[in-house]
Amino acid sequence: MRTNPFEALLSILSEDMKKVDELIANRMESDHTPLIPKITDHLINAGGKRIRPLLTLASANLFNYSGVKHIALAATVEFIHTATLLHDDVIDESLQRRGKPTANLLWNNKLAVLVGDFLFSRAFQLMVETNSIEILSSLANASAQISESEVLQMSLAQNLKSTEALYMKVIKGKTATLFAAACEVGGLISNASNIQVRALSQYGEALGISFQIVDDFLDYASTDTKLGKNIGDDFRERKVTLPVIRSLQNENENTNAFWYRTIGKGAQTKTDFKVAQEILMEDGSLNKTKLEAIRWSEIAKSKLKDLPNSQTKELLTDLTLSVVSRIV
Amino acid sequence: MRTNPFEALLSILSEDMKKVDELIANRMESDHTPLIPKITDHLINAGGKRIRPLLTLASANLFNYSGVKHIALAATVEFIHTATLLHDDVIDESLQRRGKPTANLLWNNKLAVLVGDFLFSRAFQLMVETNSIEILSSLANASAQISESEVLQMSLAQNLKSTEALYMKVIKGKTATLFAAACEVGGLISNASNIQVRALSQYGEALGISFQIVDDFLDYASTDTKLGKNIGDDFRERKVTLPVIRSLQNENENTNAFWYRTIGKGAQTKTDFKVAQEILMEDGSLNKTKLEAIRWSEIAKSKLKDLPNSQTKELLTDLTLSVVSRIV
Repeated sequence: MRTNPFEALLSILSEDMKKVDELIANRMESDHTPLIPKITDHLINAGGKRIRPLLTLASANLFNYSGVKHIALAATVEFIHTATLLHDDVIDESLQRRGKPTANLLWNNKLAVLVGDFLFSRAFQLMVETNSIEILSSLANASAQISESEVLQMSLAQNLKSTEALYMKVIKGKTATLFAAACEVGGLISNASNIQVRALSQYGEALGISFQIVDDFLDYASTDTKLGKNIGDDFRERKVTLPVIRSLQNENENTNAFWYRTIGKGAQTKTDFKVAQEILMEDGSLNKTKLEAIRWSEIAKSKLKDLPNSQTKELLTDLTLSVVSRIV
Repeated sequence: MRTNPFEALLSILSEDMKKVDELIANRMESDHTPLIPKITDHLINAGGKRIRPLLTLASANLFNYSGVKHIALAATVEFIHTATLLHDDVIDESLQRRGKPTANLLWNNKLAVLVGDFLFSRAFQLMVETNSIEILSSLANASAQISESEVLQMSLAQNLKSTEALYMKVIKGKTATLFAAACEVGGLISNASNIQVRALSQYGEALGISFQIVDDFLDYASTDTKLGKNIGDDFRERKVTLPVIRSLQNENENTNAFWYRTIGKGAQTKTDFKVAQEILMEDGSLNKTKLEAIRWSEIAKSKLKDLPNSQTKELLTDLTLSVVSRIV
């Protein structure tokens, strides 16, 4: 890779992205409730990478879409994502996200729930403006899958019997589904063929899976705090993510006893996170997790091969490597 | 009124309502997440009155609608309402709703947020199945108004400067909007004229306003616990509802000092709720609140007058009186 493909895509699509930003700012306004933009502003300007709206814009660009609906759809996807973040913040009680205090600490849980609902509603209004039942159906199904898998994730926390298959179901639902829908709707408005729309959706899904595995890897592997995320959150919240699942698969009596105590029972001491990091490094689990992320990034790449060639396609291809480059 | 119009409507529309119940049960299912129907079951079977879906069915019946879409729309409206209740329960931390422990005590806040999101998504999927952008637009706008006014309500709590106009804005948004949409979509699928759809929407809005004012009245006036709701919730949560606003309008130095201490500052003693009830009874505020509820029920009634005559119309007319009959 010569340049960062994310930055390069942003640069090619900068005019569109500016319109997306304007639309987002505009739709966060609330006539009667000035409190709303105060909160959403904080969230939307917190340095989020806008990868999801970028995928929508790039997917439309791939098919030379010349209308205006891709702007509303990109904003929709970002609203859904931001609403999910707000509700996640209530849920995880994590101390910070993207390096800034979470909305629920600055304000509180009540507001985070309600403003999340407001953003969902705004997303819904934006989608309706596209006038396409097909697109609405795609995004309605994505929304249902996201919330279903968030509940599934909660019900699996602390449960060391949860399998890799269930882990995959959770990350597909909570992350990959919205990546897939972001790409898919870009194809749908561009009147791409069914096969092409399906390829875009599969690309987005595999990219999202890869992205989430990298995230789960970094929660144990990163040593600095530049991530803008608390390292060790998953461990403290006793989420059974891929690194731990891979370690359990080793069936080592000592390390399994460690996971049963710390994640299964939640009996954690101050030094346990460091021990967890060492176990995962030494027993090969982090390495196996990394390989899995790379495998999915390659699947993502392969899904693009039959789509029309263009600079955008090249950059979307490079993006698959860029997502895992954080850990290789 | 000879019989209870609500029961009479339920009886006329019982076949449709049975289908609505079946559809609700069916769509609460989640393949991967058996936890979800456990929670929603508890909520949906907690004896809710189903007044909103009944309004949708009755509105369609008023225009002799003969299709099947009214079933999905009635279920949609109930899902939106139930999702709102779940998120409200997180927010208000009230101990019970409808006489049963709230979901957030039985389970917890996290799940209540996520399952509420799941119900919103299910509502969204059901609406999309109606294939009508007009209906989607109506319900998208209703959803946005509901969440906006919930935030507005929160930002006004404890603020004794909040006016009657703002109170009306809040109850229109959080209650009347969904009543209006429930009626409106019944007209829309029946191909009623624009004027008729507007009349239905205005009927629903006025009915909802009347319904909410009655609720706010009862929170101070009721003496028993049959309501299935904690009496005094609004007072404890320092919500500035119509009875208190009317009392403040009297500009009585002593009672205003009481409201400033208990609601403005939140310094409440055990006996204060009883004092609040006595003040509102003696200074005429409860009576004025009751008259306002009756005024809105009469507005609701008047909106039906140009719609085609039928038994259903008579019952919808009687329903306006029935809503306030709880307090007269």
